[in-house]
Amino acid sequence: MANFDLTRRLTLDKGGKILLLVMDGLGGLPREQDGPTELEAAHTPNMDRLAHEGCVGMTIPVARGIAPGSGPAHLALFGYDPLVYEIGRGVLEATGIGLEVKPGDVAIRGNFCTVDENGLITDRRAGRIPTEEGAKRVEVLREIALPGVEIAVRVGQDYRFAMVLRGEGLNGTIADTDPQQTGVAPLPARALAPEAEKTAALVNQWLAEAAKRLKGHEPANMCTLRGFASEPGLPKYHDVYKLKAACVAVYPMYKGVASLVGMDVIQTSSHDSTQDEFDHVARVWDQYDFIFCHVKYTDSRGEDGDFDGKVKVIEGVDAALPTLLNLNPDVLIITGDHSTPATYRAHSWHPVPTLLWAPATHMTDRAQAFGERECMIGALGQFPAADLMPLALAHAKRLQKYGA
Amino acid sequence: MANFDLTRRLTLDKGGKILLLVMDGLGGLPREQDGPTELEAAHTPNMDRLAHEGCVGMTIPVARGIAPGSGPAHLALFGYDPLVYEIGRGVLEATGIGLEVKPGDVAIRGNFCTVDENGLITDRRAGRIPTEEGAKRVEVLREIALPGVEIAVRVGQDYRFAMVLRGEGLNGTIADTDPQQTGVAPLPARALAPEAEKTAALVNQWLAEAAKRLKGHEPANMCTLRGFASEPGLPKYHDVYKLKAACVAVYPMYKGVASLVGMDVIQTSSHDSTQDEFDHVARVWDQYDFIFCHVKYTDSRGEDGDFDGKVKVIEGVDAALPTLLNLNPDVLIITGDHSTPATYRAHSWHPVPTLLWAPATHMTDRAQAFGERECMIGALGQFPAADLMPLALAHAKRLQKYGA
Repeated sequence: MANFDLTRRLTLDKGGKILLLVMDGLGGLPREQDGPTELEAAHTPNMDRLAHEGCVGMTIPVARGIAPGSGPAHLALFGYDPLVYEIGRGVLEATGIGLEVKPGDVAIRGNFCTVDENGLITDRRAGRIPTEEGAKRVEVLREIALPGVEIAVRVGQDYRFAMVLRGEGLNGTIADTDPQQTGVAPLPARALAPEAEKTAALVNQWLAEAAKRLKGHEPANMCTLRGFASEPGLPKYHDVYKLKAACVAVYPMYKGVASLVGMDVIQTSSHDSTQDEFDHVARVWDQYDFIFCHVKYTDSRGEDGDFDGKVKVIEGVDAALPTLLNLNPDVLIITGDHSTPATYRAHSWHPVPTLLWAPATHMTDRAQAFGERECMIGALGQFPAADLMPLALAHAKRLQKYGA
Repeated sequence: MANFDLTRRLTLDKGGKILLLVMDGLGGLPREQDGPTELEAAHTPNMDRLAHEGCVGMTIPVARGIAPGSGPAHLALFGYDPLVYEIGRGVLEATGIGLEVKPGDVAIRGNFCTVDENGLITDRRAGRIPTEEGAKRVEVLREIALPGVEIAVRVGQDYRFAMVLRGEGLNGTIADTDPQQTGVAPLPARALAPEAEKTAALVNQWLAEAAKRLKGHEPANMCTLRGFASEPGLPKYHDVYKLKAACVAVYPMYKGVASLVGMDVIQTSSHDSTQDEFDHVARVWDQYDFIFCHVKYTDSRGEDGDFDGKVKVIEGVDAALPTLLNLNPDVLIITGDHSTPATYRAHSWHPVPTLLWAPATHMTDRAQAFGERECMIGALGQFPAADLMPLALAHAKRLQKYGA
């Protein structure tokens, strides 16, 4: 799985067009014994037809029993073994709130905190100030300059922010400055490898300035930094798959992960509906070999514990699906990045229903509808999500034979 | 999978007898929506009974999405991870046209080409001369002698030939002499590792002689060499499995791969029918623990796009099957090395229907017939083809318990 030496060696630079539609947290559980899951309960005539014509299975995002975060779950869907390729916390947080992270950059998560007159932490979360208060302090932090380094800072939720450093010779192998307790001072940034010494020194310069400038801005009169991470240098889609790829997503984190693997990020609005997203796909379809389209609200309703709400989101996706089908993709994959059962109210480890429709090349099975129980008996079996990309390439006739 | 340390450690030197029947390219696809595959369409009362009594599943030859060549696909069936163990092109070509390749040998693919008076290539395939013309020039090449090296040369199809060098200290880590373009001279053989220097020098000596002797034999007045490969030194069946094994096949390539893993190659005729092959199996059955029997024409009809023809070949195998069943094998496996759907006209990546029948030890499942859709719900699930051999050994009671 996720053997890029092999895909690099076998991938052709032409072939069919691939559409990967991800409903975040798609997988679910029945609310009552013998009842349907969210996907089974949803009225989805289009997806049911595709499941009947094509083939289905269940994907395992990371490993059996492992509930993944969005980062590793999407890396797997993109064909990267999420136990081999990791996106550091800082990078995920920064991309998640819309900061761009490029090769060579170091990304960092920040928390505002409260310190007393001796500089000792009295509240690690600065009284959980609301986002608009955080935003005001971020304006203050933006004034700090460092020699030879571009700095981007952006507010996150409540007392959180993220920061990206760009410049020559930066390295993110640095320990957290958050001491994880009160009554002590924030730690200085400490390099965990010799090549990060210079970056740690710059960060300490920045922290000294931050302390000066935040003074008097109680309760958020200081900050700690965590999750230092270099841009992960992931293999890129055009290199490993020879695909010109694009991402249509509304939430910044998914755009961020997509851009880390080399996809172009199509401009969307945070108010876009599923139909709007599909219209974006249609608008740029001719320019790409591969499009990843991400629907967020299946996961949101799952996390809310809103079974019926999740059913409705799925039905909305099905109703909008003709916009994608009219593009006549050679390969259409519909899946989730992980399960978020409404009864569980969180990301779970349960395998994810997956549909592969590629009329020129797909196997068919006995599945008559798109749902967990049908997917359990499908032609694709139960398999690692990272194997979806080789399957997509094969069905798009983009892979040469291995050996003679 | 393919953990030879484990099988070596656990394999007993006695137990049941195993018969592995491979229908090349067995897996298929329906011709029309909801229609049967080739195997499902075929009338196969014997195999259906075995599938009903025993258990079925789907094998993945190399990895999901990867369409294998015959070499890696058979290595997998023989229990060798085809991403770890590779048979070089020259060795596969040489064995494929019936040249023997032994440990220490170097095998090479050759092409006749046309060169002008300055020695520059004008046609890399010598006008695609027919095989009988190639054979005449091979006679000329056979006259070339090298000090301390035995040389075997044999004509392939059209302008192709293969060559095997046998002697002390030979090594095939040598770059192709085919420059892949016209208007330039063939390249000299160049060692890619120090240990191949001596062999490269010998090959250049041979090429100089070949140039002299082919002069005037236009359009095939020179040759290029490609795919230099040493005998792969694969672990042998008697070592890793403690099995005395034999191969019954009609095509030289399958005999070649079988002999590379230590099977005895049973003499057959190129005109042998499936029934003839099964009669060969019956004739030598008492002398072996394991017999691999290979049927070629399922693949051939698939590559021809001849759905009905492939169905007929499968029906022929089923009709002849009583000859094998009368031998009362302890374990009978019926599978393919890969899929060759008639609708796809080529080797494909689709998983391969697989049947394991071992009346004393097999699980049973709900499958009532041998076909893709039944195999998708079988007891064996979907699994790497290289796991078939440990399963065969276990069902033949040839594997000890692991641990106490």
